[in-house]
Amino acid sequence: MHSPTKHIAESTVRRLSLYLRFLEEFESRGQTTVSSGELARSGGTTSAQVRKDLSFFGSFGKRGLGYGVKDLIHSIREILGLEQPWPVIIIGAGKIGAALAQYRGFTSRGFHVVGVYDRDPAKTGMNLGALSVRSDTELERDIALHKPRIAVLAVPGEAAQAMVDRVVSAGMHAILSFAPAPLHAPQGVTIRAVNMATELEILAYSLTHGV
Amino acid sequence: MHSPTKHIAESTVRRLSLYLRFLEEFESRGQTTVSSGELARSGGTTSAQVRKDLSFFGSFGKRGLGYGVKDLIHSIREILGLEQPWPVIIIGAGKIGAALAQYRGFTSRGFHVVGVYDRDPAKTGMNLGALSVRSDTELERDIALHKPRIAVLAVPGEAAQAMVDRVVSAGMHAILSFAPAPLHAPQGVTIRAVNMATELEILAYSLTHGV
Repeated sequence: MHSPTKHIAESTVRRLSLYLRFLEEFESRGQTTVSSGELARSGGTTSAQVRKDLSFFGSFGKRGLGYGVKDLIHSIREILGLEQPWPVIIIGAGKIGAALAQYRGFTSRGFHVVGVYDRDPAKTGMNLGALSVRSDTELERDIALHKPRIAVLAVPGEAAQAMVDRVVSAGMHAILSFAPAPLHAPQGVTIRAVNMATELEILAYSLTHGV
Repeated sequence: MHSPTKHIAESTVRRLSLYLRFLEEFESRGQTTVSSGELARSGGTTSAQVRKDLSFFGSFGKRGLGYGVKDLIHSIREILGLEQPWPVIIIGAGKIGAALAQYRGFTSRGFHVVGVYDRDPAKTGMNLGALSVRSDTELERDIALHKPRIAVLAVPGEAAQAMVDRVVSAGMHAILSFAPAPLHAPQGVTIRAVNMATELEILAYSLTHGV
């Protein structure tokens, strides 16, 4: 058995997040237990992989009885750190930023958007759901005051690195970027980038080469 | 040397897409050659990895002289299948769909949005950039007529699988889904899923465990 603080590969974390989604679906249908085979079929993986992923944190399943759905949901949420709320700020209130600010999928998993910022005075004051867009000049003060944990960047590519430097200086350690630009951050800061064109490029490669 | 039709791991395709972005940046600054070290530094990888990735398709670089920026851009675009235009349809004209329909990053890489569809009559006829939203009842006819190559799904989770089944029946082989739901498709159809909550969960894990 490994201790929960051992480093887990990103691919494992990604599968745990997927299992959690299926388990919540099972729970909403009133299912109380689940086998590794069921989770594997839903997730497009193997029973052995599911058992390996879950045993990483101590064994939850009972042979022949499967896993308790509620217990497993709780354990995975705890492992992923989702049993606490995560305040999130969004920087850039263009089309992508505005869509993200109102994305219901965030709130339902404990990610609460506590602020949306833009440098364009024409956008500040604009309402996005329950929030109104603030000037990016408020950013440093708001970060010190509200201590958001994750900054989502939806700014143009050419503005992205400067914004990373700003939020890192202001004390943030986790950034999710939708900006189509390579970004660098000092050690201790995690940046994840979602590049929608890259996703299409991977599909284009697959269509071109028939893989 | 491997033949270009050999199966390349997704992680390699992803890095090639990233190299392409850097190379285009170098080209726009007038740089004509690039070393594997420069590409490695930009991409957060090693020179050895860059040389390995590129040698997969035949060696382009000259020892001591580096790679020709223009040649390398052309080769990577050819490998990824980007030297041809890719017609794309977007299904779902909610906030995410509407933002994607107007995302400039797609067009600049050869992905042309040729249609946006929604089942909500209140949304059909709505203008998104140069396109107006069409009723999803037109979907099958439009796919037969215009032969789009990639369908981007931005529909609610509970509607996603039925929509996958529809576009696959209509003849599509590549789907990029933003729906927060597990999806299945028959062999020969590639589905990629972008789940923005998962990205935040990976960051939450990393903040929780300090990795």
